[in-house]
Amino acid sequence: MSFYPGLSLITLGVADVARARSFYERLGWRCSSASTPEVAFFQLNNIALALFGRRALLIDAGLEPQPDASAAAPVFSLSQNHGGTGAVDRALAEALAAGGALLKTGQATSWGGYHGIIADPDGHVWEMAWNPHFPLAPDGTIDLPT
Amino acid sequence: MSFYPGLSLITLGVADVARARSFYERLGWRCSSASTPEVAFFQLNNIALALFGRRALLIDAGLEPQPDASAAAPVFSLSQNHGGTGAVDRALAEALAAGGALLKTGQATSWGGYHGIIADPDGHVWEMAWNPHFPLAPDGTIDLPT
Repeated sequence: MSFYPGLSLITLGVADVARARSFYERLGWRCSSASTPEVAFFQLNNIALALFGRRALLIDAGLEPQPDASAAAPVFSLSQNHGGTGAVDRALAEALAAGGALLKTGQATSWGGYHGIIADPDGHVWEMAWNPHFPLAPDGTIDLPT
Repeated sequence: MSFYPGLSLITLGVADVARARSFYERLGWRCSSASTPEVAFFQLNNIALALFGRRALLIDAGLEPQPDASAAAPVFSLSQNHGGTGAVDRALAEALAAGGALLKTGQATSWGGYHGIIADPDGHVWEMAWNPHFPLAPDGTIDLPT
């Protein structure tokens, strides 16, 4: 089972990363040093949370940015991390065999890793990723830099 | 910090619970015995996943079901569980103080617990819940019945 029952990271699409980041920081949550102006990462107790521009998130997922009509609909993706590119490709193949839709074949990413994207039957986006920068526990939890 | 940095459950809004459940079961994931025809629960390694009708999810979150135009937009919610109703109310108050929008005040639920709902500045839905049926670990992870 390469597409294992676990979740490493949830990405929320936001209109303004700085504004979204401020909300979570006002709760007392600490932003990871891996954050940039384009993406904010928070290490939660059991999962990582990312805040990323909604348009950038849709493009990264292999989806067309929506027209104005649905610009207000919340956008998100679920990521599960793997130990290497082969495991990413196997997980993508399992998702397709189970009835998922391929949005993006496994490929190198701009951030130095490898990923591919599928959608479940309701269009929920799952990213399968190998990220050499974030240590990965056996249960799929990743360790962000503090 | 009542609104702690952790996530107990993610709920995905689906058009057909049985169809959505089948997809995840074909991956080899095991459905919890807490599941019903209306909602399917999966215990993942580090979090719980729920599949729930998209219209029911919107109503439960205190949101209007969308008009046809955006009926295809994926819908989801993030839940964080607490040890009691007082902690739920404190977490809701913290979310509002940080700039969140109240969608539903803390109240008893049909399933025998207590919850309230807020939205972050981008409309992402957070449920704060007390569920006496699901044991809760200190990091926010819940244990579904197998």
